[in-house]
Amino acid sequence: MSERGSLLSVFALGGINEIGKNMYVIEYGDDLVIIDCGAKFADQSLLGIDLIIPDISYLHENKHKIRGLVVTHGHEDHIGGIPYFLKKLNVPVYATRFTLGLIELKLKEHKILRESTLIEINSNSTLDFGNIQVSFFRTSHSIPDCLGILFDTPEGKIVHTGDFKFDLTPVNDQYSDIHKMAKIGEDGILLLISESTNAERPGSTPSEKEVGKHIEEAFYSATGKVIISTFASNVNRVQQIVEACKKTNRKLALLGRSMVNVVSVARQRGYLDIPDWMLVDARDVRQLPPERVVVLCTGSQGEPLAALSRLSTNSNRDVKVLQNDTVIFAASPIPGNEKDVSKIVDNLFQLGANVIYGSSTITGMHVSGHGYQEDLKWMISLMKPKYFIPIHGEYRMLHLHKKLAEAVGVEKGHTFIIRNGDVVDVQHGEARQTRKVTAGDTYVDNAGADEVGDIVLRDRKQLSEEGMLVIVVSISKENGNRISDPDSISRGFVYAKNSEELLTNINEVVKRTIDPFKDANIMGMKRAIKKEVGTFVFEQTNKKPMILPIIIAI
Amino acid sequence: MSERGSLLSVFALGGINEIGKNMYVIEYGDDLVIIDCGAKFADQSLLGIDLIIPDISYLHENKHKIRGLVVTHGHEDHIGGIPYFLKKLNVPVYATRFTLGLIELKLKEHKILRESTLIEINSNSTLDFGNIQVSFFRTSHSIPDCLGILFDTPEGKIVHTGDFKFDLTPVNDQYSDIHKMAKIGEDGILLLISESTNAERPGSTPSEKEVGKHIEEAFYSATGKVIISTFASNVNRVQQIVEACKKTNRKLALLGRSMVNVVSVARQRGYLDIPDWMLVDARDVRQLPPERVVVLCTGSQGEPLAALSRLSTNSNRDVKVLQNDTVIFAASPIPGNEKDVSKIVDNLFQLGANVIYGSSTITGMHVSGHGYQEDLKWMISLMKPKYFIPIHGEYRMLHLHKKLAEAVGVEKGHTFIIRNGDVVDVQHGEARQTRKVTAGDTYVDNAGADEVGDIVLRDRKQLSEEGMLVIVVSISKENGNRISDPDSISRGFVYAKNSEELLTNINEVVKRTIDPFKDANIMGMKRAIKKEVGTFVFEQTNKKPMILPIIIAI
Repeated sequence: MSERGSLLSVFALGGINEIGKNMYVIEYGDDLVIIDCGAKFADQSLLGIDLIIPDISYLHENKHKIRGLVVTHGHEDHIGGIPYFLKKLNVPVYATRFTLGLIELKLKEHKILRESTLIEINSNSTLDFGNIQVSFFRTSHSIPDCLGILFDTPEGKIVHTGDFKFDLTPVNDQYSDIHKMAKIGEDGILLLISESTNAERPGSTPSEKEVGKHIEEAFYSATGKVIISTFASNVNRVQQIVEACKKTNRKLALLGRSMVNVVSVARQRGYLDIPDWMLVDARDVRQLPPERVVVLCTGSQGEPLAALSRLSTNSNRDVKVLQNDTVIFAASPIPGNEKDVSKIVDNLFQLGANVIYGSSTITGMHVSGHGYQEDLKWMISLMKPKYFIPIHGEYRMLHLHKKLAEAVGVEKGHTFIIRNGDVVDVQHGEARQTRKVTAGDTYVDNAGADEVGDIVLRDRKQLSEEGMLVIVVSISKENGNRISDPDSISRGFVYAKNSEELLTNINEVVKRTIDPFKDANIMGMKRAIKKEVGTFVFEQTNKKPMILPIIIAI
Repeated sequence: MSERGSLLSVFALGGINEIGKNMYVIEYGDDLVIIDCGAKFADQSLLGIDLIIPDISYLHENKHKIRGLVVTHGHEDHIGGIPYFLKKLNVPVYATRFTLGLIELKLKEHKILRESTLIEINSNSTLDFGNIQVSFFRTSHSIPDCLGILFDTPEGKIVHTGDFKFDLTPVNDQYSDIHKMAKIGEDGILLLISESTNAERPGSTPSEKEVGKHIEEAFYSATGKVIISTFASNVNRVQQIVEACKKTNRKLALLGRSMVNVVSVARQRGYLDIPDWMLVDARDVRQLPPERVVVLCTGSQGEPLAALSRLSTNSNRDVKVLQNDTVIFAASPIPGNEKDVSKIVDNLFQLGANVIYGSSTITGMHVSGHGYQEDLKWMISLMKPKYFIPIHGEYRMLHLHKKLAEAVGVEKGHTFIIRNGDVVDVQHGEARQTRKVTAGDTYVDNAGADEVGDIVLRDRKQLSEEGMLVIVVSISKENGNRISDPDSISRGFVYAKNSEELLTNINEVVKRTIDPFKDANIMGMKRAIKKEVGTFVFEQTNKKPMILPIIIAI
């Protein structure tokens, strides 16, 4: 970038026009800092794909500049890509104590913990990355130990909020450091980069304490066992479940691998206080009177392999759902998960359970970790930035966040609604968005073994919707004469009416197509078969199966 | 059924534990009446499948008993299966004037209108089906001309509610006939069959008139063009849009095939009053001042091929979305459609439009056509049935509806929560559920040309997630000796690490597998290749692609 002189550049490699795979970059001269490295779950349209992580081509090309990866907090959409990233670029990772605990779990699974460089920081840390000085402030969110980040550069100061809400009555002392934020804003901010998840929701985000009250009431009313499901990482909510157990004299059993792991990390590192006497093994649940037990489990999003899903079909070996047990969904379904959650609710009702589910405005069993419109306006008002970049949201959220910023004083034209890869450059105090770097989706297959390319996905899509026709014919190596009759085999392709007749006719088309060839031009024959058979099948059936011609030259 | 003597039987062939493909049967002796014949849209997990309709094996086997298909109203989940059904069993169809209009549109498309028998009825009609006498009562719903049905049988009276809410201030005089319902209940009902869609929602369903007020306000505030999208069949809402056009002096253009078709049917048959001067062609929209136009279009559910989706990418030839146009979603997203709707909202914001979308409790732009808990209790209270079957809902809704029924006096043990195919038999005034008939899903492929079987679907699923490996080898017809090296071709299958090496190794496995064969045992070779290669590939890659061995015997 020397042709541009020293320049402050800000961009996203993930996290814009999506919720998931957050990754942002701050670059000045030869120093580059990465913020977060998330993953996103693939939806059903990405056939056989499990995870999506950011395309890091740009970082590969500029790896000499990378000073470190700074992590705001431990949610999947901020840390889920780290193992894949470190396998490619082994850079130092900076995160708070709890966040590091979650990252370590991942690196252990991927067997790369030993060779990774993990550096613990806290909200008072400062990092010297050459031209970029980094410091932090505490925020409230739905996971402990979250950071906002201040970057001090020769061009001015940048704040990245991380994920946040303002919770003035938080659980476990997870206060936002509003005084430090006010001081930062007072000193003058060039650019604020703020999350937009709840920019569509009017008002202020309710406090996590509200959920605690409802959990306590439900525990008091429950006559049988209580089964409660929430996000494992919502340690503060788990703490409230523990408090409700104390008050109602119930033991607590943990179910689900991530629940067990995260609770263990949180206890070891001092973020969760559970008395030893309270915890029981899931195997011992059936020996206790139902009214003395709470089972805390994963699966509140309806994940088919998680603990709650198994409980709902009574296929867990140790814990059975009985008549009059109470099952609580202490989480709202993330858009897209409604159907999976509903299926579990159906099953639980069939087992005779009392199920508390549905809109949190009715049940009170969930509050968001992301700031609503008033919270977002508070952040912008505290920071008083000259420029603003809304991130961490789909377009409509970024758009509405921009309107909020303008309402609290950000000048029109000073907000940049960017896409992944769009670069905002700042020089001589002026910000402009004119250029792009490579950004995109990298697909990760089952268990993260492989990256999957677009062609494979396109093939899968065609195969999945129309199936395939394999056409085999053998020819003479010498003169291209056909030796056998063609054979057509279909898989996943269907045409009910006269399907045998269709295959016979296809074989005739194949003969007509290749018999005129005067030599063993295999590529030419394949192309011709694809074209002629494709046209014929489409005319006959209105379908476009994948056509795979196989020519055996003997 | 003669071995059971004359018996009253009630069951569902679709509509239970699902929203969609409603089809119910009332049978007494040799007389059988069908209620509704719906279709359900397939979700992405059913690869390449468009529609699901009821399995009608039972009706095939008992076609001599069928007296007719009686249709409660014209929604897809009640009439969408009719064309497919009539192609198999051409029985007379009874429906109200408006419902018949919608059915005729479908039959025309399927080119079977001429040979179908359609009989117009109204709420005063009575039908004599041998042992079963049928009469009707009017209900309110989100489409005009809806019926509840009373079946009078030798065993007693049955009421099927159809879909309903109670709207005491309906649009276009679509009143529920509550006095007739009270009279029917007074005369004594053996069994009530009632829809359960909104059994989860407390309170009473708001009146359609509420939406009209909000539409009118939005039209008054809009400075540019108004684009409003709703269900084409919600004719009463369309009427309110027409009224708002009148008040704000705007012309009305219709966009989307089903909107044009349904509005045309509704006008012709007297369910919708639009003055001729108000309607303009979509082609003329750009010649009018934006503030004088409303565009009413399909696509409120985010359907990718519908009018609103095309507008949101400005790919409609005639109508463009301009800065400051107002776009109104006058419909809530049906669960599962949220992501598609959000994408369109994102695009519309990018075009600079003012978009009114999201929860109807905030926008006021939608009310449900299905009764909330209080409406459901009203129906049960009016009917005072001895027995109760909740239908038209997923399990949790049926379960909650049962609780509502018990709360208003239905005796415990007198509610049957059935599945599709479960038969409730009534004899000597006592109802029991002990036996089943065949019921299930029939899949309909693109454009409804074909029914798709489970095997094809299973193949597609495997193909879509893991791809396929085609293995070709030629052998001697005489002695089974291998003539060529095996060739492995993959599609949609990927294993990034050393993928060529893998294919080479697979070919070695194939050689090892078939070379010991002493004759041209093609089936045996295929089986062996499938097994050995399958095992090898899974060991090496942890994946299970479909393996298709092709043996050419020459």
